[in-house]
Amino acid sequence: MKKTNFIKISKPTLIIDRARCQRNIQLMADKAKTHNLIFRPHFKTHQSLEIGRWFKNIGIDKITVSSWSMASYFADEWQDITVAFPFNVLEIDTANALASKISLNVLVESPETVRFLHKNSKYHLGVFIKIDVGSHRTGVLPSHTFLIDAILHQIEKAPGLTFLGFLTHAGHTYRCRSIGEIQAAHHECLEQLRLLKQKYRSNYPQLMITIGDTPGCSVADEFDDVDEIRPGNFVYYDLMQVQIGACAADQIGVAVACPIVAKHAERHEIVIYGGGIHFSKERLEHKVYGIIYGQVVEKKGDGWGQLIPSVYLRSLSQEHGVVVVGPERFDEYHLGDLLYVLPIHSCMTANLMMGPLSESYKFI
Amino acid sequence: MKKTNFIKISKPTLIIDRARCQRNIQLMADKAKTHNLIFRPHFKTHQSLEIGRWFKNIGIDKITVSSWSMASYFADEWQDITVAFPFNVLEIDTANALASKISLNVLVESPETVRFLHKNSKYHLGVFIKIDVGSHRTGVLPSHTFLIDAILHQIEKAPGLTFLGFLTHAGHTYRCRSIGEIQAAHHECLEQLRLLKQKYRSNYPQLMITIGDTPGCSVADEFDDVDEIRPGNFVYYDLMQVQIGACAADQIGVAVACPIVAKHAERHEIVIYGGGIHFSKERLEHKVYGIIYGQVVEKKGDGWGQLIPSVYLRSLSQEHGVVVVGPERFDEYHLGDLLYVLPIHSCMTANLMMGPLSESYKFI
Repeated sequence: MKKTNFIKISKPTLIIDRARCQRNIQLMADKAKTHNLIFRPHFKTHQSLEIGRWFKNIGIDKITVSSWSMASYFADEWQDITVAFPFNVLEIDTANALASKISLNVLVESPETVRFLHKNSKYHLGVFIKIDVGSHRTGVLPSHTFLIDAILHQIEKAPGLTFLGFLTHAGHTYRCRSIGEIQAAHHECLEQLRLLKQKYRSNYPQLMITIGDTPGCSVADEFDDVDEIRPGNFVYYDLMQVQIGACAADQIGVAVACPIVAKHAERHEIVIYGGGIHFSKERLEHKVYGIIYGQVVEKKGDGWGQLIPSVYLRSLSQEHGVVVVGPERFDEYHLGDLLYVLPIHSCMTANLMMGPLSESYKFI
Repeated sequence: MKKTNFIKISKPTLIIDRARCQRNIQLMADKAKTHNLIFRPHFKTHQSLEIGRWFKNIGIDKITVSSWSMASYFADEWQDITVAFPFNVLEIDTANALASKISLNVLVESPETVRFLHKNSKYHLGVFIKIDVGSHRTGVLPSHTFLIDAILHQIEKAPGLTFLGFLTHAGHTYRCRSIGEIQAAHHECLEQLRLLKQKYRSNYPQLMITIGDTPGCSVADEFDDVDEIRPGNFVYYDLMQVQIGACAADQIGVAVACPIVAKHAERHEIVIYGGGIHFSKERLEHKVYGIIYGQVVEKKGDGWGQLIPSVYLRSLSQEHGVVVVGPERFDEYHLGDLLYVLPIHSCMTANLMMGPLSESYKFI
């Protein structure tokens, strides 16, 4: 539990506010408990063994990841992992190696993939059918029960595969812009899953419904017929989640500390060392500022406080960020100061700054 | 010079076509020679010692980087490095450590930074003044000669600093959409630098003009008064450079090989394992397809051939990419096949796929 020494930060560094993140984790765990849900958090957001232990410390023992690389990384400490990504047949060797050691669940959305698993998987696998409830990225449409039946038929033939239920990610809640909109999208998602559960539960009385989007899991209170939640982003949240209506700005648990390297008095802009290779090029259309890549917060002790109005990242190149500051605050910033910037999409930023091999982060 | 064994690719992998890249390098080196220019390529695009050696093999001995991390990485093999980023005073220790071993040039755009270097740098540094010729990211406006004079005044006082000249990156050529537009922007850039050279060369007869943008360096033929070029992206090029008019699609030297993990017959789309953490979220507004994140090419032997019309990446999430395929070609693609996708911005993609610690790339 080392304290950060800010004097040592000399390049873009992800600052992780332990207290905010642990509060976010506790809130979600409490919500799962209240609604009698299994809580299987998605670890793609932080990709960190250390943060994983914060979950373990409050009794969580099942996780979600989105790649076999992440599953391999976490498999030493976690014995029950769902790889929430359409099964990639080219990675069967990794899947077999892991399945020999831990309990693994995979996602399928075609009979072909199930046939492949039947033939090639060497150990037991739990199998979820991915359902597309409206995001139209992956999954079987709930109305395509002929396809669901065909998949189930293949699973039945494979003794090493167990059908566990229907899994979805209501990614279209990311297009919402208020709590009401999120709740409506969430309700519509549940309606579709409920019909599936009703249709299939006579043959599969144990079948589970598992949902995953941070907006729905954060603000909805309707979880009838849901058995498991798998949110990931909520551990950090970010400006996108604020815009969606999923959290408040003061719940955001990460900021990027960036050195100021140039000042442009003629346009009241500041240039920071902090670019697309630190934040990612994820953007957001702000209703006042237009397209932005991050927003600046006040420094406060070892961490940060409120958003500073009208101070935001207007553009990013590989290493540079250009920050609009405005005339009133321009003189408050100096070359060599650190600017704290909240990211648009914390999953993408954390992937760049705190992957297993990176050291560009500090805990406070 | 190991041959790629494609059978081994099971997850998103950057494929680097050695022949195309070496042709791009040779063309740029020839152009520099024709115009009697120093060729100091920017290594931020590839960040690779191996690719660096391709330059060394044709006699290049000076390079450009955009961070002290990259400078440190390349300093074992390269003895003359320009760090083309506004000097970050917080990294003075790294700068001093490197300057004790190799020849280093830095960028400044304020008298404050020069004062800091005067006081804190322990070894000789070459100093360029960064000029903003229109991209409005960093640099002194050419009309602000009072500021240039103030910077020069500070440099004069510092015996360890040598003023080398004016450096610019005409990043606004990235907004061009034809060779004619690039040439016009390039001409305007040179006009501004020429006036500065005329004004300051009586006091500094050796002063250099150094320019860096890939579009201008690729297609312009006007280099009077230019002493050095520092393009980087040209080694790979990408779809953005095709759109700008800087290269042809068949000059692009990298593609990302991505496994097909799902097919959606009802909308003739394919889902690949290949998302924002592989491509970056860099996007491009295509005149026919709208916002795209990559375009698919034909597989051809160990490499790839032409762009396939109307087959493109329409969206990216962390690990997934959704590819619009259309009804005619839908049946040509199968689960487990590799799709080859040209990136929008190769610098960002390569940073994710072939940083010093990554192994997600293969040479062909």
